[in-house]
This record gives sequence, C-alpha cells and structure tokens, in this order.
Amino acid sequence: MATITKTSPLAPKGGFPSLPVISGVRFASVAAGVKYQGRTDVMLAEIAPGSSVAGVFTRSATRAAPVLDCQAKLGTVDDPNAGFAFLVNSGNANAFTGGAGVAAVGHTAGAVAKTLSIPESHVYTASTGVIGEPLPHEKITSALDKLSADLDPEKIEDAAQAIMTTDTFAKGAERVIEVDGKPVKIAGIAKGSGMIAPDMATMLVYIFTDAKISQPALQALVSSENARSFNCITVDSDTSTSDTLLVAATGASGVDVEGHAGFAEALHDVMLDLAHLVVRDGEGATKFVEVQVTAAVNDTDAKRVAMAIANSPLVKTAIAGEDPNWGRVVMAIGKSGAQADRDRISIWFGDVLVAENGWVSPDYVEADAAAHMKGEVLLIRVDLGLDTGAATVWTCDLTHGYIEINADYRS
Amino acid sequence: MATITKTSPLAPKGGFPSLPVISGVRFASVAAGVKYQGRTDVMLAEIAPGSSVAGVFTRSATRAAPVLDCQAKLGTVDDPNAGFAFLVNSGNANAFTGGAGVAAVGHTAGAVAKTLSIPESHVYTASTGVIGEPLPHEKITSALDKLSADLDPEKIEDAAQAIMTTDTFAKGAERVIEVDGKPVKIAGIAKGSGMIAPDMATMLVYIFTDAKISQPALQALVSSENARSFNCITVDSDTSTSDTLLVAATGASGVDVEGHAGFAEALHDVMLDLAHLVVRDGEGATKFVEVQVTAAVNDTDAKRVAMAIANSPLVKTAIAGEDPNWGRVVMAIGKSGAQADRDRISIWFGDVLVAENGWVSPDYVEADAAAHMKGEVLLIRVDLGLDTGAATVWTCDLTHGYIEINADYRS
Repeated sequence: MATITKTSPLAPKGGFPSLPVISGVRFASVAAGVKYQGRTDVMLAEIAPGSSVAGVFTRSATRAAPVLDCQAKLGTVDDPNAGFAFLVNSGNANAFTGGAGVAAVGHTAGAVAKTLSIPESHVYTASTGVIGEPLPHEKITSALDKLSADLDPEKIEDAAQAIMTTDTFAKGAERVIEVDGKPVKIAGIAKGSGMIAPDMATMLVYIFTDAKISQPALQALVSSENARSFNCITVDSDTSTSDTLLVAATGASGVDVEGHAGFAEALHDVMLDLAHLVVRDGEGATKFVEVQVTAAVNDTDAKRVAMAIANSPLVKTAIAGEDPNWGRVVMAIGKSGAQADRDRISIWFGDVLVAENGWVSPDYVEADAAAHMKGEVLLIRVDLGLDTGAATVWTCDLTHGYIEINADYRS
Repeated sequence: MATITKTSPLAPKGGFPSLPVISGVRFASVAAGVKYQGRTDVMLAEIAPGSSVAGVFTRSATRAAPVLDCQAKLGTVDDPNAGFAFLVNSGNANAFTGGAGVAAVGHTAGAVAKTLSIPESHVYTASTGVIGEPLPHEKITSALDKLSADLDPEKIEDAAQAIMTTDTFAKGAERVIEVDGKPVKIAGIAKGSGMIAPDMATMLVYIFTDAKISQPALQALVSSENARSFNCITVDSDTSTSDTLLVAATGASGVDVEGHAGFAEALHDVMLDLAHLVVRDGEGATKFVEVQVTAAVNDTDAKRVAMAIANSPLVKTAIAGEDPNWGRVVMAIGKSGAQADRDRISIWFGDVLVAENGWVSPDYVEADAAAHMKGEVLLIRVDLGLDTGAATVWTCDLTHGYIEINADYRS
C-alpha cells in the first residue's frame, strides 16, 4: 500500500475534534506489527454490560470473514450481565482468505472473550488493509494483555489512529443533546479513503453513545440513517469487502431515547459528519463535491442520476481541472438510466445557472461558473423538471493523486 | 479539448491498413474550420442508389440532435433511384444545443441533399466534439461544393482522419470473403477514445460493403453483432451523447449475402477489429486488457462481472502499475451485483492461476503473474464456478495520461 505522507487538503483545519467521554466505553490501541511498522494498528473497545449494539455491513458478495462473523452475531445477547468488545486491526483485511480467514476470526474473537471474560458472541472484529493475505492473528492475540491493561475512556482518538490505512487524517465526530433536561452524548470514529462506493456502510465506522435504547430500536435507527449518510457517498465507485458500521449505546446517561426525534437527528448528524470526513480523505482528493438532484420521477431515479454524476471519471477529472464542463454533467445524466427529458433539464454550478431548456442558459457567463469551480467545496445541482424525486450525494475529484496512490506503488 | 501529439503506444504498428475499394461509395474530406485549425474536420460519404443502410445509436437519454435525426430516418427509402449520404464533422458534438441543434441538422442535411440531388431523408449526419456549443453549420454547408467535387472511391483513410477528436490514430478495418466464388468486400472506419462505455454503439463507426442485402436483414445483423463487439468495450464507463454506427451495403458485388454465415462472421470481425482499435486508443491507455468471465449463472451476470472488473478504477490503476492485484478483482466481483460464491471463484492473470477455492492458489508465484502484467496485451480470467454463463469484454488501464487529457486542460 502506498505510503502517504501529506495530509489531505480537505482535512478539517482544526484537527481531530474534542470528543465527549461516553460512560461505559473504554479504548486501547497498540503497535502489534500486523503489517505497518512504527505505528499503532490494533484497537480494542470495551463496552459495558447492558449496552445495545447495532450495525450495517457491506453488501459485497465477496465480503470478508470478520464481516460474515459480525453479521451472524448482531442482535445476540448470550449473557445479559456481560459486556461487548470491538477489536479492529489495520494492514490486513482478512478478506478472500478461505477457511484460514474464518479460523483467524475465531482465534482473535476467542482471545478477546477470554481476556475480558465475556462470551465470544459479544466480540465484533474487523480487519482493513490488503486483501488475500493470511491474517497474522497471533500478533494480535499476543497484544491483548497489554490492550486490556491500557483500556481508558479517553483514548478514542488513539483508537481512530490505529484503524487508518491510506487515510491521511484520523476522523471523529460528536453531538451532545439534551433530552428531558439531561445530556446524551454521541461520539464516533471512522476510517476510509479508497474503495468507497454506494450501497454499503463505508469502510469502518464506530459510534458510541450513553443513550438508553433497545437493540432492535437502535438497529432500525442505524439502518435508516445509514441510507441518508454513508450510502450517499462515493470516492471511486469501488465497494469494499470489509465495510462495517457499528453503534453501541451504553445507556449510562439513564436517558431513554427510543422514538426521540432529537436523538435520531443527532445520530444522523454524527454519521453524516463521519461520511463527509471519509470523502474529504478520498484518495487524491482536492475538492469536496455535493451533487443535488431534484424533480426526478422518484427518489431512486434522483439517486441514480446523482451517483452517475458523482462516479463519472469525466465529471471528476473536469472538477479536478476546475473546468465548469456542464456537457459532461449532461452526458452523465444521459447514461444514468434514469428517466430524463433533455429539454427540461436545468444545471447549476453553485448558484450559477449554466443550462436550461435543453441548452446553455442565455444569461450564463462562464467566468462565474469557473470562479465557483476554484473553491474547495463545490455544488453541482441538477433539476430534471419531471416530478418530486430528490437525492443528495457527496464525492470528491479524480486527480493524479489517485493514480499515484493506486498505480505508482505496489500494494 | 486537449492537444494530443503522441500516438497511443497500443496503436497498430503497421499504421492505417490498406482498405479495399467498395464499389458504389465515394469519400471526400475538407478543413472547414468548425473548431480545429490546420486539419480536416468534415467528411462526406456518397452511397449509390439501391444500397441498404442500417445502424445502431447511443441509448443516452440526452442524445444529440443528429442521433435523433438519424434514428428517425433509418429504414426510410423515399426514392428508390436516389443514393444516400453520410456527413460527419468533428470539433463540435451539436449535443444539448436545443432547438438550434435540430435546426443545424436540417441546414446541413438539407444542403447535402441539394448538392447530391437526393432526398433529405437519405442524409445521415453526425457530429463529435464539444457538447453544448452551437454548431457553426454555415462553415460546413459552404464547404459542400468542394466536398462534392472531391468525391473519390479511394479516399476512405482521409475520411477516417477527418472524424478524429482526441483520437491519436485513424482507425480502419477490412475483410474480403468469397461467396459463390465471387469476392465480397467490407471496409470500415471508426473514431473514439474517451467517453466510451457499454450499452451503446461506440462513438462514430462507418462500415461499407459491396454485398447485396435488404435493409431489414442488414439491420438485424448489425444489431446482433453490435452486442458482441462495440457493446463489449469500455474505456471509462462514460457513455457518449453521440455514438453512431452506420453500415451501408451497396450491392455492387452482385452477391446476395442474406443468411450467409460467412458474411455475418466477416462483418463481426470488422466490427470487433474497430472496437478493439477504439480501446487501443483509449485516453491515456498503455495496456489492452481482455476480461473473460465463465461459469456465471447466466450470460447477463457474466457480463455484469466482466464490466465491473473492466470499469473498476482500482483494477484499472493496478493494471497501469503492472500490479497483479487480484484482491481488487475479488472486490469488483463482489460489488458487481452478480451471483457469486466466494469459495468457488478462480482467477487467472494470463495463464497464471492466482486464486481458487476462496483463497490464493497454493501454487501461485507472484513473479509469474507480475511477468504477465508487464506485457502490453493482458488477460484477466474469472471462473465463478456456478453455471454456464459467459462473457468477454475489452478495456484499457487508467493512467496519468487520462487525468492529463481530461483534467489538466480546459475543454
């Protein structure tokens, strides 16, 4: 994998945010030498008994062994008095590793269960990195005593660093809301940079809250909010074999949030923040792009058009070149497969109306659109002029940096 | 549009082939200054009375005015004693140009009809180049007298040059077969380099034959062979608004080829040659890649997998880096949406079996696969181990050259 030394120009200027401590969750990370040298590469999160754990995973037909294991375990509580654990390593995806991959998950999850005295079915693992190489699971299991001894409620930023691969910055997001006069906290971390595409949860995302909510209610909330956040981003249209989003609610706040709209909104905000951060760390990205599509025949068609624009190599290279090339947007609408009437389409770059009624707008001045394209955060807006279907997705540009990371180096 | 001065490394070493003269067809080209300076940019082909004309066109929902006009005219014979004409300009696509675009087609097609004394419904136009700019049709119509005077049966190579945009070499292909002891000739030209994707005829292709065949029979043949040639190539997954394939059969050989398998095969060969030449001129391409998928549940699923591999930015950049990164092939299979069982998949690079039974092959030596990747013509073969579905598609790699052509220059 390429060695990336430069932080993405789209990284938040303030660095990693100050995340609230979530009562009932402790973190530790360690340099186990799974693949990388001189950096941490394994993180352990211990979650208190009585917590609810919900999640969504990649829909890839070739998903990795840890993903299959997590999917089998989700919703299971074998001992109501026992806690849960998340164990994540970077540097090796343990994907397409056959029976040995399944065995490796058993080794690491079993060792965590023994170390923390919890059922193995309460241990969720994930692996991210190179596909097809055997996971050196003994390097991970031999680090568990140290990880367990180091567990600390304040070490979430270190955990975010340990799960990075081609990421150029650690990603965190938080919200604190008041429910019935009491604070409820949400803190999340994510990793992801390449192999990011729609119809999945993105690479690895872990969110923690001290809210009180049943597992089925939390799962329903996570699934529906995922559709409005991680499933609306794309870096390169390539879907990972390992994508995992897990949310743990410890209940330590004592505040029941089931059915509470404010909590749903705060959770959505944290998920969308993390999704945007993944795009901002897209391999080689120099522009953060929002694509809004309105007036499609339905929401599905609107998303089809938005994703066709966001994934088009010609649109993405035009953005990299700061070229308000609306002809390529027209091309992407046309190829999307969605219902479209050429003469009803309107296109804006930012606030600049570039095309309407099947041709360039009579008031269009290219210098105005070109000025918008020079910004770091761009908006491409398309109105199909048909009905009320709408969708918004987020992506980045396609630059020499992407080619460098993925072609100029051997994985 | 970028100025490309270097010929693709994948161009045929022998240059433009020697194409047979097709009796009943004459060509002319001219430098009309539509956009480019110092080169030809309009070609006219005159086709004898009694010929059959068949074609397929882009399925884009935002297709260009000339495409809509051709589709309306196809199969029409308003005067059995009158010939046909193809008029093509490069430098301007006359796409997304509203009512003015429709009017421009009327101006040019009408002028050709008058110049050659044929019905306007017998004139097929096409335009390729920048989207969204008005076509300076008077530059084309004022060149028609010169074009008409210059018509010559031997000038097909000049015609192939006049229709180029970002192409780095002119593309031609031919076959001569014997039917009942008499020769039947086929000669074709194509242009296309970027905005090349599945589910369409590629950019612009014109094929001529002296075979005798009715229009409906020729149309059926062209449609079915298109599915096995142009619809199986992809450069960048972006579908053009102007793709046009037209085939004219003059009947001058006096040989009726209706239902003749040898003619169908020869026509297929010419179409596939031209399709491969378009991939070999893919923007920035340095590798020509065949992707074979076998043992899918059906042919549709096989093509889905093959196209997911051929369009994956991560696979294409790995090929550019000469990296036998089979993990990315696994990823592409997984995201394709096709039915797949991880533990039944086998993957080869060339003759080298890299993965089987859900993991790396025990006999795999990376140096062998790496040696294959250094070649100019590559094979990625996937056996899904499920049923008899099969598909083969062709693509090229994704390099800095693609970014340079599409991002570093303003269109």
